[in-house]
Amino acid sequence: MAVREATPQDARLVARMLHAFNTEFGEPTPPVEVLAERLERLLAGDDMVALLAGEEGLALLTFRPGVWDPGPVALLEEMYVVPDRRGQGIGSAVIERAFDVARERGCATFQVNVDEPDVDAQRFYEAHGVAGTFDGHRAFWFEREL
Amino acid sequence: MAVREATPQDARLVARMLHAFNTEFGEPTPPVEVLAERLERLLAGDDMVALLAGEEGLALLTFRPGVWDPGPVALLEEMYVVPDRRGQGIGSAVIERAFDVARERGCATFQVNVDEPDVDAQRFYEAHGVAGTFDGHRAFWFEREL
Repeated sequence: MAVREATPQDARLVARMLHAFNTEFGEPTPPVEVLAERLERLLAGDDMVALLAGEEGLALLTFRPGVWDPGPVALLEEMYVVPDRRGQGIGSAVIERAFDVARERGCATFQVNVDEPDVDAQRFYEAHGVAGTFDGHRAFWFEREL
Repeated sequence: MAVREATPQDARLVARMLHAFNTEFGEPTPPVEVLAERLERLLAGDDMVALLAGEEGLALLTFRPGVWDPGPVALLEEMYVVPDRRGQGIGSAVIERAFDVARERGCATFQVNVDEPDVDAQRFYEAHGVAGTFDGHRAFWFEREL
């Protein structure tokens, strides 16, 4: 499965996939138009990358500065495969490409947050070397609105 | 307790505090010189901010693009108060200022990761409105080296 880096011209496709993702999982989402407008700007910048496997798989990555490593830190913000193409290796192709893109940018660390009930996602990440225990303990993702 | 935004000229002080933090908790850290050199560059940029309460309290924040909100997303990367000044409200002053800085930058979301055994930190964050449950469930922080 070929995976390519999205350009700002792909903003609408990426927006549609992110919208479908949140809709499927009952999460709130801005309308596709709003996401597309944001993505057109963000994908033209240097600190967000979307990876596309056709119109069927997506990873959205951000890069931010880190002090502990010489390079930036990669965070997998979102990952999505269209429902009728799941279980066919598309997610694996996309995440492996995400690792490569992060390595090319000099990242030493690749992070993601995953919901506790989403054991399938946890298994998927663990199978790709992204683990939820550090020195024998777990870490939680905390958040607040401002 | 006055809290101010660090400048690149504060890189060495920030480096010393981060080094002391990791050393206290048995985490690996580059030498102070290496951290100071990195911080001098990063604090001159736009996507990392260090907040200082004298030489006694520190918060290190990053900002990265987000698609779900109009503005960037704030992540509290590190927070530290020197051992003999803990429990005196310095951490509270620092994190409240971190919220303000994030709001000024248009952030709607403020994130942090916290180790499961570190119940004191969890209590501190919860007391400041940073919560570890979303729609009734928790989320884990997953990570791999590249």
